Amino acid sequence: MLLGVDPSLRGTGYGIIRLANPHPATLAQGTIHCPTTWDRSRCLAKISHTLREVIREYRPAVCAIESLFYAQNLKTALIMGEARGAALAAIAEEGLEIFEIAPRKVKLAVVGYGAAQKIAVAKMVQRMLGLVNLPEPDAADALALALAFAQEQGRPALSAPKKI
Amino acid sequence: MLLGVDPSLRGTGYGIIRLANPHPATLAQGTIHCPTTWDRSRCLAKISHTLREVIREYRPAVCAIESLFYAQNLKTALIMGEARGAALAAIAEEGLEIFEIAPRKVKLAVVGYGAAQKIAVAKMVQRMLGLVNLPEPDAADALALALAFAQEQGRPALSAPKKI
Repeated sequence: MLLGVDPSLRGTGYGIIRLANPHPATLAQGTIHCPTTWDRSRCLAKISHTLREVIREYRPAVCAIESLFYAQNLKTALIMGEARGAALAAIAEEGLEIFEIAPRKVKLAVVGYGAAQKIAVAKMVQRMLGLVNLPEPDAADALALALAFAQEQGRPALSAPKKI
Repeated sequence: MLLGVDPSLRGTGYGIIRLANPHPATLAQGTIHCPTTWDRSRCLAKISHTLREVIREYRPAVCAIESLFYAQNLKTALIMGEARGAALAAIAEEGLEIFEIAPRKVKLAVVGYGAAQKIAVAKMVQRMLGLVNLPEPDAADALALALAFAQEQGRPALSAPKKI
């Protein structure tokens, strides 16, 4: 079982898949919404708490997350970093191995095009997982991470996901 | 009781003080050391875990942390942000109220000079708390945050610490 997670302060996406035929099974997926009226620390606590609950329910062994990415400026980078830290601390405390994949590689693996748009990713994720409904954008990104990680596993390790 | 915390990936300082006469009492202080050989996620888990343990032992109600600060570049900002996020999530989950204070104001409050050097801060912290030994630099910064927050509490709220 694989957890994909796409952390951000106001909308952290997550998804848990299990490899199966004819397509991987989606065990859980969702977005941790935090209203803009909430204090930052309250959002971080909710991110940490929700991911811990999901992990304890399904017990995935591995987590895939985007590698350190571009941010518009230092303040944005710090705030994005805080959301990642809240997520990663909870995931690591639950004993999962965590791997980073570059955003470009995720899109390449799922859509076949490294600069694919968000909606294209969501649609391909829906098709690859046989989901009835289009997943929310943040949850779709998290599921795409899990799918991309699963694909990478079967390949030569020239540019393997990096354990962090 | 007040918790001061100065998060960083490899050396997070913390300190818990209680206001008392002739000087505040130091209940706990230390540095969460994480060797450079450790994966980032292992450090984040240790930061989160250690702070939770310390909080559960002493039950402070309030936490003081530096406000979003300068970072050299985006990558540094993301990594600093991750350490902050791991710390803040654990502290907020334990129910503490968290306040940010600008680094300059901490130095001003403790040393009387906004651009004071680290060693000057540690020496003043040692004197103000009546400590036998000079605290480690990261722990000293955390104790300085708690002391500065305690001082701000008694003042007009022109530039009060910001709840986050």
